[in-house]
Amino acid sequence: MEYKVIEGGGITSPKGFTAGAVYVGVKSRKSQKPDVAVLYSETEASCAAVFTTNKFCAAPVILDREILKNGKARAIVINSGNANAATGTQGIEDARTVEREAEKLLGVGENEVFVCSTGVIGQKLPVEKVLDGVRQIIPAKLDKDNGSDAAYAIMTTDTVRKESAYELELSSGTIRIGAMAKGSGMIHPNMGTMLCGITTDCAIDGALLQDMLRQVVTKTFNRITVDGDTSTNDTCVVLANGLAGNPAITGPGEDYDIFFAALRHVCEYEAKMIASDGEGAGRLITCTVMGAETEEQAEQMAKAVVRSPLVKCAVFGTDANWGRVLCAIGYSGAQFDPKDVEVKFLSRAGELLVCAGGQGVAFDEALAKRVLSEDEVVIQVTLTSGSATCSCWGCDLTYDYVKINGDYRS
Amino acid sequence: MEYKVIEGGGITSPKGFTAGAVYVGVKSRKSQKPDVAVLYSETEASCAAVFTTNKFCAAPVILDREILKNGKARAIVINSGNANAATGTQGIEDARTVEREAEKLLGVGENEVFVCSTGVIGQKLPVEKVLDGVRQIIPAKLDKDNGSDAAYAIMTTDTVRKESAYELELSSGTIRIGAMAKGSGMIHPNMGTMLCGITTDCAIDGALLQDMLRQVVTKTFNRITVDGDTSTNDTCVVLANGLAGNPAITGPGEDYDIFFAALRHVCEYEAKMIASDGEGAGRLITCTVMGAETEEQAEQMAKAVVRSPLVKCAVFGTDANWGRVLCAIGYSGAQFDPKDVEVKFLSRAGELLVCAGGQGVAFDEALAKRVLSEDEVVIQVTLTSGSATCSCWGCDLTYDYVKINGDYRS
Repeated sequence: MEYKVIEGGGITSPKGFTAGAVYVGVKSRKSQKPDVAVLYSETEASCAAVFTTNKFCAAPVILDREILKNGKARAIVINSGNANAATGTQGIEDARTVEREAEKLLGVGENEVFVCSTGVIGQKLPVEKVLDGVRQIIPAKLDKDNGSDAAYAIMTTDTVRKESAYELELSSGTIRIGAMAKGSGMIHPNMGTMLCGITTDCAIDGALLQDMLRQVVTKTFNRITVDGDTSTNDTCVVLANGLAGNPAITGPGEDYDIFFAALRHVCEYEAKMIASDGEGAGRLITCTVMGAETEEQAEQMAKAVVRSPLVKCAVFGTDANWGRVLCAIGYSGAQFDPKDVEVKFLSRAGELLVCAGGQGVAFDEALAKRVLSEDEVVIQVTLTSGSATCSCWGCDLTYDYVKINGDYRS
Repeated sequence: MEYKVIEGGGITSPKGFTAGAVYVGVKSRKSQKPDVAVLYSETEASCAAVFTTNKFCAAPVILDREILKNGKARAIVINSGNANAATGTQGIEDARTVEREAEKLLGVGENEVFVCSTGVIGQKLPVEKVLDGVRQIIPAKLDKDNGSDAAYAIMTTDTVRKESAYELELSSGTIRIGAMAKGSGMIHPNMGTMLCGITTDCAIDGALLQDMLRQVVTKTFNRITVDGDTSTNDTCVVLANGLAGNPAITGPGEDYDIFFAALRHVCEYEAKMIASDGEGAGRLITCTVMGAETEEQAEQMAKAVVRSPLVKCAVFGTDANWGRVLCAIGYSGAQFDPKDVEVKFLSRAGELLVCAGGQGVAFDEALAKRVLSEDEVVIQVTLTSGSATCSCWGCDLTYDYVKINGDYRS
């Protein structure tokens, strides 16, 4: 399937969505980067969301689980600089206050605004600052043109905005889908991701959308890792406002398949953006396992490889140390025959066979350096156990990861 | 229980054990550090051993599983610089050749010599060099005084020798137990450790010793982590030659309990030595979880904390970022009530309460810096779910870890 990319597009590309962002000082005064964002749907939208499985989930995650029960939503308020996690009942009240203020200003019903936070864990949310931001944005700054501002405002240690938007043809009309995400450290999502907001003007049933999102997240955001730490705040929310005017998708069929594939495409793109912008990262590492007995086993192996600090350091050092790849799939818990393993390193610069039949083969070290020096490196593991395949994504481990995380709070 | 430490002692401290080491060029010419070691028991010894669970286990691990079936052993040959892993059937033949040569030179029976390797994965063992080393050592260099040379020869990226020896009183006599270990990277043992050789002159039944070792390893070596990577070569071997002259321990009783406690003490000491000498590490991090429902759950939580790259970086940066501790126990998979969690940082420099009732408490940042600047830092997590306790050990994540592993092969 081919997707029509909307250049420079994002969450406000679909019909009826606006956004805005301001700086109010939740982040440090030094940065002066925007830290409160609002995403708004002009009409009621079906919604779907998945959240972290961390037992210490943040206050806004607890609140959003309630909001989701409503089945319909109009907006998302996001602050960066403070995670509002491990903040007790006060944290939940603070998130609720932000939600209520946004609903009042937007003139929408109760339980129609999601609230997301990202930043330092364990410090009380500066709720007055966030409310100040919400009041500055609604309605004055809500605009079609401000989608990118919102994508910038939700960043913490991210170095790039993570936006995308596509247009696609359903059998019954043209729809758009847009997304923004943030995430750079504490990335090892499990049933959610860092923060991701997805918008679409497609008309689609809410329950169906929720089911779709769960399936898609499992195969996209849950297959990336930066450091193996599953965040307390992981949240992915989709708003679908139906303004494209297509007859609503309510069950299986051609349009279901097209939309499902597009949602997966968007989530995979955003997930890879997060992995490649991992804290301190210089390279996106994709591990693709082929010929596994089951997709689950392929995923176990691929995830072990992209999570391994030793593999990550080797890629940082452009060192074709394939023994570490074998080591990682060996402890992944997946079943396979060690005698049947082939490993290749691939990138734009070429392809390199380094291991066949579970043993090393002679290779050109100079070519290895060139292949591993590219921004995107693929580690391809081929087995002969079956026909299942899975890709997972991660990044290299660099001095900058240590630097960033040695003193994150200050 | 109190243990009489044998100062400067190690694997040759118990009666009837000698050792020797030489440099033969398995390691690079630059280093000229010894790279082949032999540990020898003058009389037949009961033996016990545990090995890695990595499916890509190294050739010597495959061989040693056979040797172990013999129930009796006389020696261990260890080379560093090459792991003899992912080397196929040739690797197994090479390990067997080393074993046979050592048996011939020592004049002992078949299947009486363990072989261990550690170093780069996936390169053919330079078997002639290892054999040369074995011939130089046996018998000329085998000596009571050379235990420390052997402990030095098995090091790779280790920065210190990891030796210890103790004397203890059984009801029926005095025995000694000594140990040496190596391990610094690829440390996340599972049913084994990197390499550890333990000697004792205690008379003890082999099957009983094997059972004891399995139990002890679970509570010691399996509770350390440097990078979450479980090595292909993890091996821990105990030789018990009975020369102390005590009536053999053959079942439960006072002497069983004393010896069990001592074996655990030795393994815990060696395990902590490995964790504190983790690649690039500056600090030993102990996470103790108390008040958990079960020891298994306490272990899940403690291990997640010492494994978390974010916690490790925070300790490196002397940043009391307790939110990351909560995050790690939150995704550990263990059951607990987030509202009941207390976190303290402790070291020689003092004690600091940073979280109570699952929320942050105000603390003195200057004291926090002082507490976290010590060589040994304890993260103490207290729950109210039950009375189970567990400690796990790890180290901080530093620039040097990245440096060491960005270019290990060259």
